[in-house]
Amino acid sequence: MPMTLLDGKQIAADIRAELRQELDTLRLSGRRAPKLGIVIVGENPASVTYVNNKMRACAEVGIEAERIALSDQISEQELLEVVRRLNDDSSIDGFIVQLPLPSHINEATVLSAIDYRKDVDGLTPANVGRTVQGQPAIVSATPRGIRELLSRYHIPTAGKHVVVIGRSNIVGKPVAMLLMQRPYLSLPGMSAASLGDATVTICHSRTQDLPAITRTADIIIVAAGCPGLLTADMVRQGATVIDVGINRIDDPDSPRGYRLVGDVDFQNVAPLCNYITPVPGGVGPMTIVSLLQNTLQAYKNHIS
Amino acid sequence: MPMTLLDGKQIAADIRAELRQELDTLRLSGRRAPKLGIVIVGENPASVTYVNNKMRACAEVGIEAERIALSDQISEQELLEVVRRLNDDSSIDGFIVQLPLPSHINEATVLSAIDYRKDVDGLTPANVGRTVQGQPAIVSATPRGIRELLSRYHIPTAGKHVVVIGRSNIVGKPVAMLLMQRPYLSLPGMSAASLGDATVTICHSRTQDLPAITRTADIIIVAAGCPGLLTADMVRQGATVIDVGINRIDDPDSPRGYRLVGDVDFQNVAPLCNYITPVPGGVGPMTIVSLLQNTLQAYKNHIS
Repeated sequence: MPMTLLDGKQIAADIRAELRQELDTLRLSGRRAPKLGIVIVGENPASVTYVNNKMRACAEVGIEAERIALSDQISEQELLEVVRRLNDDSSIDGFIVQLPLPSHINEATVLSAIDYRKDVDGLTPANVGRTVQGQPAIVSATPRGIRELLSRYHIPTAGKHVVVIGRSNIVGKPVAMLLMQRPYLSLPGMSAASLGDATVTICHSRTQDLPAITRTADIIIVAAGCPGLLTADMVRQGATVIDVGINRIDDPDSPRGYRLVGDVDFQNVAPLCNYITPVPGGVGPMTIVSLLQNTLQAYKNHIS
Repeated sequence: MPMTLLDGKQIAADIRAELRQELDTLRLSGRRAPKLGIVIVGENPASVTYVNNKMRACAEVGIEAERIALSDQISEQELLEVVRRLNDDSSIDGFIVQLPLPSHINEATVLSAIDYRKDVDGLTPANVGRTVQGQPAIVSATPRGIRELLSRYHIPTAGKHVVVIGRSNIVGKPVAMLLMQRPYLSLPGMSAASLGDATVTICHSRTQDLPAITRTADIIIVAAGCPGLLTADMVRQGATVIDVGINRIDDPDSPRGYRLVGDVDFQNVAPLCNYITPVPGGVGPMTIVSLLQNTLQAYKNHIS
């Protein structure tokens, strides 16, 4: 089987077009638009860029977005008050708090205060727990995007061995839990309802003999933040490789002085694969579109 | 290395003695006793037995226990009212709702309504999510008991390959999440703080070639509810086997007409193992003692 690139950029564009159409239909039937709140604390340049991208993506599909920009001098108590106000604001269907937060604020405390029904980043303990238990939940953006990508390319997961490298709260742990669920426990409105039922192994920095484990995998999901971690000797012929890494490495030939690479030695691994994501243009574009899908899901739950 | 039986009955007795001593000390310093609420709906004979055992275990260590016995005709709304009353009752440090509930009541809805700080069964989405995220949490009884058992026998998990068979909400999924955590994220008051950091594989009914996976395991945790599932050809020499199954099988030679067996073909698997739990007397006794530990943990959080 020849290698196929999993084109996240194209799939994300397809999904945005579907969302736009669905929201147009809702609007024509007299419904209000969904509304997303985006809380940003301080002016971290990367955060400002991410928030701008999210605002633009919302505008493109017809989701109303409101930026709530707060001083980096805000206290944890004041930020918790903002969260509570947004929880209670019936004009807001969902909201996110852009991370990272200033070091004097406990991120876990702030995230835990978000009403899980409005938690469109899917990072509250309640949504994580509901995902684990197979209850209806809002799944965090990257895991949802990975599942969607597999689904759109008709890559089955049932009975397959999925090896996840990395145990972060935003990717490794939730994607492992998502792909091992019974599929009938899938989310309403997900096109990926046929996914799940995978045998999942979670590996991390303390794992012994990682290559022996990855060589048994049908699907490898790498989310370790370590350029070149997955090498050709670790991958068996015909595997599917999902590269979640986004690392900047110096590149004097690039006008920006750097280029983006994933966690996979793409050049040598790709020829072995049936499917592989490029970086950039693979998982990355799926993440923002998942936020849009989550906002629509929260909106539908809210108005119903 | 000769095979060692993991004597859950003895370890549970040791822990009860430790708890009794700690609670005696608290009492002598003028503190009130911890108080556990146990909600039971209807008169399912197995549930009545479990509740009696829990009441007796509480009495033995000096935890006050209050049985809240409700008619099986109670509506879901009425039961939710009881849960809310217990959430608000400052004389109760923690409480459990004995499962199963009558079929007209949604168990997930009832469990989700419990304040996670009082959820000493560790079954609310908030506690499951906090466990996954490595935040302080109350861990459900059987996973906590398994971790304690490994800890008391000084069986390391860091870097080891743990294979979990079964993906239930009360055992398989939470024990997998618990054993793969970074150990510095362990719970306050746990003697098992050195545990965690395992490479974990979760297998289930849809897993292909289960024997090939279990043969690579250092530790196998079987929680499938299927007598004789784990056979000798699936276990490598020197493995540790934790058998969570409790199955009744007919036995005309027994005065009760049945005997209890686990999910492991004990007779043939045990000679291969460095460590193995018997059934009964292995994981079972650890489960009730975990409830006592969780109640003490909730009490300490409550009074501090």
